[in-house]
Amino acid sequence: MRPFKSLISFEEAQKIALDAINPISRTEKVKVQDSINRVLATGIQAQMAVPPFDRAAMDGYAVLASDTFGSGRFDPKVLKLVGSVHAGEVLNVEVNQGQCVEIATGAKIPKGADSVVMIEDTERENHEVKVFKPVYPQANMSLSGSDISEGEMVLNENEVLGPGKIGVLTSLGLEYVKVYEKPKVAIIPTGNEVAEVGDDLKDGQVFNSNSYALSAIAKENGAIPMRMGIVEDTQDSLKSAIKKALSNDFVVLSGGSSVGERDVLVDVVEELGEILFHGVQVKPGKPLLLGQVEKKLVLGTPGYPTACLIDGYVFMAPMIRKLAHLPAIQRQKVKAKISRRVVSTLGRQQFLTVRLENGEAIPVFKESGAITSMAEAVGFVEIPANVDLVEKGDSVEVVLF
Amino acid sequence: MRPFKSLISFEEAQKIALDAINPISRTEKVKVQDSINRVLATGIQAQMAVPPFDRAAMDGYAVLASDTFGSGRFDPKVLKLVGSVHAGEVLNVEVNQGQCVEIATGAKIPKGADSVVMIEDTERENHEVKVFKPVYPQANMSLSGSDISEGEMVLNENEVLGPGKIGVLTSLGLEYVKVYEKPKVAIIPTGNEVAEVGDDLKDGQVFNSNSYALSAIAKENGAIPMRMGIVEDTQDSLKSAIKKALSNDFVVLSGGSSVGERDVLVDVVEELGEILFHGVQVKPGKPLLLGQVEKKLVLGTPGYPTACLIDGYVFMAPMIRKLAHLPAIQRQKVKAKISRRVVSTLGRQQFLTVRLENGEAIPVFKESGAITSMAEAVGFVEIPANVDLVEKGDSVEVVLF
Repeated sequence: MRPFKSLISFEEAQKIALDAINPISRTEKVKVQDSINRVLATGIQAQMAVPPFDRAAMDGYAVLASDTFGSGRFDPKVLKLVGSVHAGEVLNVEVNQGQCVEIATGAKIPKGADSVVMIEDTERENHEVKVFKPVYPQANMSLSGSDISEGEMVLNENEVLGPGKIGVLTSLGLEYVKVYEKPKVAIIPTGNEVAEVGDDLKDGQVFNSNSYALSAIAKENGAIPMRMGIVEDTQDSLKSAIKKALSNDFVVLSGGSSVGERDVLVDVVEELGEILFHGVQVKPGKPLLLGQVEKKLVLGTPGYPTACLIDGYVFMAPMIRKLAHLPAIQRQKVKAKISRRVVSTLGRQQFLTVRLENGEAIPVFKESGAITSMAEAVGFVEIPANVDLVEKGDSVEVVLF
Repeated sequence: MRPFKSLISFEEAQKIALDAINPISRTEKVKVQDSINRVLATGIQAQMAVPPFDRAAMDGYAVLASDTFGSGRFDPKVLKLVGSVHAGEVLNVEVNQGQCVEIATGAKIPKGADSVVMIEDTERENHEVKVFKPVYPQANMSLSGSDISEGEMVLNENEVLGPGKIGVLTSLGLEYVKVYEKPKVAIIPTGNEVAEVGDDLKDGQVFNSNSYALSAIAKENGAIPMRMGIVEDTQDSLKSAIKKALSNDFVVLSGGSSVGERDVLVDVVEELGEILFHGVQVKPGKPLLLGQVEKKLVLGTPGYPTACLIDGYVFMAPMIRKLAHLPAIQRQKVKAKISRRVVSTLGRQQFLTVRLENGEAIPVFKESGAITSMAEAVGFVEIPANVDLVEKGDSVEVVLF
């Protein structure tokens, strides 16, 4: 059995992991309606102005502003109604001095008019409209290009498409948009004791749950998880599984990176490529391995569920996001009082899984082997490597998943 | 033209809207691997224990604890090695007094043994193992059911499935899970001036962008958006479009709820069912209409993009989440100084769209008609209805989208 040679700090490991990532360069064209949360692979320059024409911003009358000057509540100006225009219509009537056109919000301003008087400031009698309040030129109008001018860069490369940005794309009439492909992440469950979900469980076996949980984290962070079959803990099986998985953008293994008799992953990665680190000062999740094989990163997470998932959240997820051109996660943080004394391990940054109840952070960590530690948790408290004790009632910050 | 009779407050409108929602009762069976962010329609009771057997939590030797009592660094107890067991294997050897079995993490504890001595506290020579440190019974073991006991309710109805919970389901060997169906939300763009994306834009027309943006918000909040064709602003067209849309769980229209000559939606909803409110003291987004037709809710949002999207975020999204059995959104909030004086409207709660730069909240709101106000914004500042002025440099809270 081989001990870890020297563990590196959490920060150092995260830096090595992120520095090693090259965001993917493959792009694809997707329908704008399917582009939510995708990342733009190109800036978007407006090929038209929005709105494409001067339009009314209010219901009222399109007028020449100068015709309204000097009007007042007791001294209205009277204009002649020469037409009416609804949104979507074009009125081929010119508004001349002393005239007006009834106009609906969104309708194109007829020729000659330079402003809109709000309906509330008028009174109509047959073909005469009394205006009780002056307007200045361009009042109650949206000018062509006031929202987006033609030729303007409206969105930049690497922007993530949310509802508002999708609105911008469609307001320009775009049906398709060029985005970065989602990275494909191979997820390989390893271990002779692992049985596939749906199969019968033999004595001494446990069900494969890590690869499902890691796949869920990968999906949440913009990747396409490629869950592979369970691989035995032998050099040959691991080697061929990793080689096969290298057609993906990133290879993640669960199980097989702890220091045990059967810990053959280290040897395999060393043989196929190079090891970037093995062993990190975190708890749980210490036996984490990062290697590089044929320019692809290979991340070996521990087999124990809580350890595996914590490494999934704090290492795999940020790596996937960088691959996918997604910004780093800004996890929501809430302050809470811790419900009991927690003894931590000096020299290891602890991620203490907790649930929240009445402003209290209640530790739910059982042991690295317990999956329920993760299922019950809403987040974790980070206890730095140089802190060995958190007293009951101490104020802590809970980082929400 | 018909004025709003009396506007109700934001809080009142939200309460009416949410109270009117009946979460959907239809359920479906989905593969656990596809269940991320879905809502459990039933509690999950464990049909097996996890782990299913007593297993080693460390690499070492399975022993009788009593055999190790009294051992010390200079006074080891010597045990006879009678076998070796790896994870996934079952060893048909009984450990008797004075004996031990080499065991790997995760392997089933052989009969007779009641504890594990860590490899670090031993020394092996051929078939003899020296134990340098006593262990108590059950030391370095995970007992069967210590994570999940058989019959335990591990997850409850209405829980949202995240990575950890998916791990729990698969650790129980479950392939399928019963979840609530996603609500189907019909999204109907209205307006004679609206052209479909992909078509040629005629003079006086603008592209349909609201229905895409609303669909994106609906999708983000757990619904299946059913985007329908553009409907003309006539009683008959609207009536038949709404009737057709009632096969969905919720009907949302964009455009057509402002007070204009062509504002026929109010009449149509009144004729088909009842109006719950029309006009809310918010800015933008005031001309919002909520009605009920054949027990389905019908939400009419304004046609102006920023107004439409704000109503989408603050009204439609919470309604959809309740329909979908999803918990209310906990939007992330950040503090910032506002970059310029903002004059607000007394009597209307303002949602001021902003972007963030160096800790400053910079208003990006142009006008309700501008889609870029939403695209550039990372969130909004809520200015209560009783505040009419926010001074430059004032501390505000930005609610992130």
